[in-house]
Amino acid sequence: MNALRFAVAAALGLLVTSARAEIVTRTVEYKQGDTVLEGFLAYDTAGPAKKPGVLVVHDWKGIGPNTKRRVEMLAKMGYVAFAPDIYGKGVRPVDGKEAGATAGPYFKNRALVRERVLAGFQDLARQPNVDPKRIAAIGYCFGGMVALELGRSGADVAGVVSFHGILDNPTPADAKKIKGKTLVLHGADDPYVPDAQVKAFADEMRAAGVDWQLVAYSGAVHAFTIVEAGNDNSKGSAYNATADRRSWKAMEDFFAEVLAN
Amino acid sequence: MNALRFAVAAALGLLVTSARAEIVTRTVEYKQGDTVLEGFLAYDTAGPAKKPGVLVVHDWKGIGPNTKRRVEMLAKMGYVAFAPDIYGKGVRPVDGKEAGATAGPYFKNRALVRERVLAGFQDLARQPNVDPKRIAAIGYCFGGMVALELGRSGADVAGVVSFHGILDNPTPADAKKIKGKTLVLHGADDPYVPDAQVKAFADEMRAAGVDWQLVAYSGAVHAFTIVEAGNDNSKGSAYNATADRRSWKAMEDFFAEVLAN
Repeated sequence: MNALRFAVAAALGLLVTSARAEIVTRTVEYKQGDTVLEGFLAYDTAGPAKKPGVLVVHDWKGIGPNTKRRVEMLAKMGYVAFAPDIYGKGVRPVDGKEAGATAGPYFKNRALVRERVLAGFQDLARQPNVDPKRIAAIGYCFGGMVALELGRSGADVAGVVSFHGILDNPTPADAKKIKGKTLVLHGADDPYVPDAQVKAFADEMRAAGVDWQLVAYSGAVHAFTIVEAGNDNSKGSAYNATADRRSWKAMEDFFAEVLAN
Repeated sequence: MNALRFAVAAALGLLVTSARAEIVTRTVEYKQGDTVLEGFLAYDTAGPAKKPGVLVVHDWKGIGPNTKRRVEMLAKMGYVAFAPDIYGKGVRPVDGKEAGATAGPYFKNRALVRERVLAGFQDLARQPNVDPKRIAAIGYCFGGMVALELGRSGADVAGVVSFHGILDNPTPADAKKIKGKTLVLHGADDPYVPDAQVKAFADEMRAAGVDWQLVAYSGAVHAFTIVEAGNDNSKGSAYNATADRRSWKAMEDFFAEVLAN
């Protein structure tokens, strides 16, 4: 974030200090082309001067409670965490219908998805307290797809983690551009990511020689890490505390490998 | 192990103390029906009086260097680790041809597999320093199949871990008997466990409502944790240091969940 952006954020009263005084969170305005985007940043003022960075890509509803919670959890773990805004400032769907209508065009325009997430990646890499060689990206549902597209863009990202992300890829040959490691955390009963889509993803990764891992969690449907999704598996999206805990641990182990100094 | 068996083992000079003086290893003679079996036990003399137990089921060559190494690693981690002998005392195939001929009949006779592994499970549960309510089983290749069969037998095992195990099951309905949790650590390029077998396994677990997880590791073929398998993936079996390290960590995380006090 440059000085002007910081001044704007400060003027807007967006500098917030949590109960643990050393964790700073703030919204960050930045641009992709002419589109104004509003991301969410958090970090610990203590610790090393240069920390690893983690991009946290929102689900189809845009940056909301789940995204912010994850950003803050990662900041407490010592990462500079940043939720990039894929949709644009103020574009925050209020329900599933709006979210579907907003996300839909992005699924069909992966080039735009890559530009939007790259803008966030570059903003995070520019942060003065970030080691730009140690940046990973995670994403939820829609954001899992976005995080995978960041890898496929050829960005210099150390690792990508998809939580119940959509795995389809209109341009499988782009998997050859992936530079970092890929971890897919998948609900074994996710109706939006059926076995055939998982198989196609595995074949894509194999053909490209990517370092990838896929974990399937039993009893977990779409959105299994999102408390706000409720607990009715029959709806196709539901929170699952066991899969949430296990998948977060898998991410921690992955970060210990790909973000180590 | 009862007092007589201990005395026999001691008389045979099989009580060995490793460089870390507190780790004890010894062979253990026991029986299934009229068949004499010779397992391998290790534990730390320090630590709590009752420890969790881990059964370590050998690959198709029987109890050998890999099995003993894993038993000792687990003992150092605080478990009472025991390699049950599925084949019988002295039945130790020297090459792949002998191993295939020895293992083959067991793949076709799962009832015998269950009796053999249950005998080892019961022997471990009887050890005076084992908490019989906290026993898990792991297994390698052939032994992965055996560990899964222990679960399907309805044994009171807290968790089962298959390392590059064969996943097929002639009696999928038996998955309903599984009491503990199941973790499958799978080489994504394993020619002996193709995607269709993985899919059938997932469907078996889903139908039975088992708590299961499956991790697929890229670039890993059969036997990916076994150093003795060499490093030529084109042979279908080969060691993979990355997948070995990752899968061991996944097992540690799983044990932290299922074997906690």
